[in-house]
Amino acid sequence: MFFQIIDILGTIAFAISGALVAMSKRMDPFGVLIIAFVTAVGGGTLRDVMVGIEPVSWMKNMTFVYVIIGSAVFAVVFRKRISYLRKSLFLFDTIGISLYTVIGIETGLIAGLHPLICIALGTMTACFGGVIRDILCNEIPVIFRKEIYATACILGGLTYFLLLHFFEDRNYLFVIVAVVVITVRLIAVRYKISLPSLYKKEELE
Amino acid sequence: MFFQIIDILGTIAFAISGALVAMSKRMDPFGVLIIAFVTAVGGGTLRDVMVGIEPVSWMKNMTFVYVIIGSAVFAVVFRKRISYLRKSLFLFDTIGISLYTVIGIETGLIAGLHPLICIALGTMTACFGGVIRDILCNEIPVIFRKEIYATACILGGLTYFLLLHFFEDRNYLFVIVAVVVITVRLIAVRYKISLPSLYKKEELE
Amino acid sequence: MFFQIIDILGTIAFAISGALVAMSKRMDPFGVLIIAFVTAVGGGTLRDVMVGIEPVSWMKNMTFVYVIIGSAVFAVVFRKRISYLRKSLFLFDTIGISLYTVIGIETGLIAGLHPLICIALGTMTACFGGVIRDILCNEIPVIFRKEIYATACILGGLTYFLLLHFFEDRNYLFVIVAVVVITVRLIAVRYKISLPSLYKKEELE
Repeated sequence: MFFQIIDILGTIAFAISGALVAMSKRMDPFGVLIIAFVTAVGGGTLRDVMVGIEPVSWMKNMTFVYVIIGSAVFAVVFRKRISYLRKSLFLFDTIGISLYTVIGIETGLIAGLHPLICIALGTMTACFGGVIRDILCNEIPVIFRKEIYATACILGGLTYFLLLHFFEDRNYLFVIVAVVVITVRLIAVRYKISLPSLYKKEELE
Repeated sequence: MFFQIIDILGTIAFAISGALVAMSKRMDPFGVLIIAFVTAVGGGTLRDVMVGIEPVSWMKNMTFVYVIIGSAVFAVVFRKRISYLRKSLFLFDTIGISLYTVIGIETGLIAGLHPLICIALGTMTACFGGVIRDILCNEIPVIFRKEIYATACILGGLTYFLLLHFFEDRNYLFVIVAVVVITVRLIAVRYKISLPSLYKKEELE
Repeated sequence: MFFQIIDILGTIAFAISGALVAMSKRMDPFGVLIIAFVTAVGGGTLRDVMVGIEPVSWMKNMTFVYVIIGSAVFAVVFRKRISYLRKSLFLFDTIGISLYTVIGIETGLIAGLHPLICIALGTMTACFGGVIRDILCNEIPVIFRKEIYATACILGGLTYFLLLHFFEDRNYLFVIVAVVVITVRLIAVRYKISLPSLYKKEELE
């Protein structure tokens, strides 16, 4: 129940972030709806298809469809005020990737996959929606920017498997993972921390 | 039978449209063939993978493979004359998305999915081939342009479920959906109608 | 066994090529790892998903995961020296696409698919990882460049089915396919051969 509420909050955040990017690209209303949808379900779709959960999850749970449509409409109606919301949106987005990371890991565990695969699934679930949103909108894909994004998800996933033996209740562990992802991202953005890139321009050629 | 003929016409239209874009990007013959293929089967592939129909449909029906290869060869051989055909191509393309919309909806119905999911599947089937063609060819993706495109498919899909209770024969309904998609797109292009975008430049920051 | 060794060599080559491109785009270490991963498993993932092999192969065989992580770390550590390796990398990459072509064809044969579908699967397996790498890194996709790339895979695939009746042992045939792919690519690059593009600039409009 607790998880489902945050899952819905995450979906709302991703849908609104997609709608905002689409509107900033001057798409028409249906384009905005489509990008909101793709952003919110893209990661989970890739995960389900790779694991073999078909029809993919969101096709079987209308709650998310309604939440996405509602979020897109909300973003359109309140588009002038929403820039005041940018900070809470960033927070939602961060909660979103933290929760999507957890859901991805859980999907992998249920399918009996190796821990590293589970971490990869968590990271994909969290990041792929934003990547496909950016590709469709001709933005530089999110994982390609300076900000720590995928890195937070990977660190969260590693935390899960490092602490696995110290917890009996999986749910506690998932909360810790989510907190790690959120903390890493918030600290990274607050203090403008980014991992160093590995190549210097001069080293090329 | 009637449907299969239009399905093939749609495939031809998409394959030729892909080949034309690829040639305009100066791709070599095999590149042209690949883009023709991707444009024609991209939407159906995404739909089948998400629903769980695997191997995907076109892998089990060689008719479409031959039709696509033939269309690509045709487009290459008659590339100088084909610009006279642009109008009929636009028509074929429009017939194509109308029919692909119907096929996507039908696939969703057979899988027992919710009406809104079926509409999403129809729209994806119709539009995704063109989107992936444009991404591979470095064009602005088709749903991102001013033209009404996905919107026509969504309206067609809504029509299906609005009229569902008035028809006993699904096939009639599918014809109506196709006609709606075609009419909306033709009227939109003829009168240069496009939905208004929601953001004005000044509203952004 | 022989095949598995070359498969691993191919994976190494693709992972390193992905890591190199990502570093040249100044991505952070986790970005480099992600692109290395995507480049190495992208083609196989698309193939498995379309055929219905799920969870996809690399999720069930940790060897490849470790090989990819090791290759990415290797590429990062020796990034200054690796430019001396560019030629052997090109060779590895070429061996990679030749072997991935073979594996794609074999997957199609096992699934009982038509020869042309098998050739398409082989070409996708070989080329898609590079295409997705290039899209994520904002490079012009590899199949879109002048170099012969997909063409070599298609010719290799055609060779397989043309010679099918002259060989009893499939393995010999696969070696021949790999040799054809490698030879075509090496000759094409050595003598700067590329297929002519079909459109001249003036012909457009």
